Amino acid sequence: MGGVSATIAATLVRMLDPAVADVRRAVREALAPFADSGARILIALSGGADSLALASAAAHEAPKVGLEPITVTIDHGLQDGSAEIAERAADLARGFGIRTARIERVEVGSAGGPEAAARDARYAALRRVASEEDAVAVLVGHTLDDQAETVLLGLARGSGSASLSGMSPHSLDGLGLAWIRPMLGLRRETTAAFCAAEGLEPWQDPHNSDERFSRVRVRERVLPVLESELGPGIAEALWRTAEQLREDDEAFADMIDETIEDIVEHAEAGIAVSVPALHANPTALRHRIIRHVVESEFGVSLTRLQTLEIARLVTDWKGQGPLDLPGFQASRRGNLVIFTASAQEITQST
Amino acid sequence: MGGVSATIAATLVRMLDPAVADVRRAVREALAPFADSGARILIALSGGADSLALASAAAHEAPKVGLEPITVTIDHGLQDGSAEIAERAADLARGFGIRTARIERVEVGSAGGPEAAARDARYAALRRVASEEDAVAVLVGHTLDDQAETVLLGLARGSGSASLSGMSPHSLDGLGLAWIRPMLGLRRETTAAFCAAEGLEPWQDPHNSDERFSRVRVRERVLPVLESELGPGIAEALWRTAEQLREDDEAFADMIDETIEDIVEHAEAGIAVSVPALHANPTALRHRIIRHVVESEFGVSLTRLQTLEIARLVTDWKGQGPLDLPGFQASRRGNLVIFTASAQEITQST
Repeated sequence: MGGVSATIAATLVRMLDPAVADVRRAVREALAPFADSGARILIALSGGADSLALASAAAHEAPKVGLEPITVTIDHGLQDGSAEIAERAADLARGFGIRTARIERVEVGSAGGPEAAARDARYAALRRVASEEDAVAVLVGHTLDDQAETVLLGLARGSGSASLSGMSPHSLDGLGLAWIRPMLGLRRETTAAFCAAEGLEPWQDPHNSDERFSRVRVRERVLPVLESELGPGIAEALWRTAEQLREDDEAFADMIDETIEDIVEHAEAGIAVSVPALHANPTALRHRIIRHVVESEFGVSLTRLQTLEIARLVTDWKGQGPLDLPGFQASRRGNLVIFTASAQEITQST
Repeated sequence: MGGVSATIAATLVRMLDPAVADVRRAVREALAPFADSGARILIALSGGADSLALASAAAHEAPKVGLEPITVTIDHGLQDGSAEIAERAADLARGFGIRTARIERVEVGSAGGPEAAARDARYAALRRVASEEDAVAVLVGHTLDDQAETVLLGLARGSGSASLSGMSPHSLDGLGLAWIRPMLGLRRETTAAFCAAEGLEPWQDPHNSDERFSRVRVRERVLPVLESELGPGIAEALWRTAEQLREDDEAFADMIDETIEDIVEHAEAGIAVSVPALHANPTALRHRIIRHVVESEFGVSLTRLQTLEIARLVTDWKGQGPLDLPGFQASRRGNLVIFTASAQEITQST
């Protein structure tokens, strides 16, 4: 009997905790496209539960497919003891067998508010380290809960699928660096369970409960109300919404890529778009083409109202004069809508 | 001096209240496409502030463009005194100069829950009365606030742009009847102000504060929290979101209309869709084509997960067997995905 019990006990000990299995599987799937390339994969490690689980799983999975996992911990310098917290995270990473565990101290500005400024500084540092370390991909620890929060924050902006499609599970930036969020389909409770099962003590970032931040208020006050009033599963519903709207947005982006060169003409003073082509396109695409042209030509992100006003030069043309918009002018000339830069310099693009 | 004051007073009295001007303008714009047709326009009149304002404005605007406004008040028979409430609404309509002010008593079933059952009965009665009265359009009194609530309810379902695009400001049904919501861009406070300015006392439907209804909970508990945590303007943001996602959805519907006949083949046992065509389309369109085919062929509304499973027959084909789904089977044969009805009868379509 004792022998059998010992065998069962040994088996139980060796059974993988479901949360550990889930996170490792998600990371394995995310790394598959890079398998056997010998490349370096950079993991963004804050020391919180999400990124600790990510780094631990990547340390386990990456070497199995011939990849080298490295970590970077960004010290934003915003809290007392932030240097020690970063040191501790890097030490934990070394404990996972990760040889390169860097710490980057950044200066956080103020543009766009505290959350946006910290994010900008963080992503700039991640890009820089990825380049210095010759990494092909950056793994980021966002979960399904983060995605749900992002969708709700986007909802408050009210700018359609672009703001509701949340974060992408994988994307390539302009420099060919892959940005990957392997855990975007997993709940935050799974990463917490991962840490518990692996005996890891995650850092509890006090910013995560600082209600000055809109993301924290969404997490602590908005989502619980949605959950209790509209039924459980709201986080998953928001995540599914993001997935579908991202597909929609990508489809429209593809369509614009395919047609844009045929319908625009670069002129001396700006850019001209064919009215018949704009007319023939469905409204959704017409509006996106207008936004795309203005964004790429003048770096200006149009509001819904401004977009509609420009669209009326196409669909409701009654000889109206040029539209003066921040940084540029839009006017109708024959079968063209002409966009020209304003005389004054653009001081700030939105 | 007395003479001048009297003139000013007379001018003030004649100035239109802004809420009255806003509602009338919205109704005028909605009626413009029907102008001078001599047609009858049916107004859905509950007796609440929204539909009272709508009926009053339509009674004022419709005759000016040669249209005849008529109203119908649906008596759902769900509350004590509902017959008297309906009578009072019809009397108010007659007071606006509307000659045909009908009352329809309906039987509310139970399918889909109390809200859905009442809505089904109501819309069936509206269709019937529109047909009997030879009306070309039905005007419905939904406001921006209703639209915001609809978007939040759709968010909880998590089925992408289809469930987030809310109610359409104008649409044509299969019988050529126009359904118009002239006040979808106006706040509920505007219709209340309209009634106050016109001395109308709207009926306060107790169902509008019955928290058993998810729409009421969204109005009373969810929207106020969103407003206080994410800043004012959330209702407008939700409304803008609906507007943009409806455009997106319509664009995809157009694309499907244009291509569907070229890529499907009706076979003896069902319907076959070209794999290369599905492959060539962007993911968003591929998924919508799959949903469209299944919906139109079997009356089944696919979940996201089911749609993804079928899509894998196209994008991740490894010789997997037929998929058994409620009411039908999907399988890959060569360059086709074949959809066939299940042997057993479909007892209930979702």
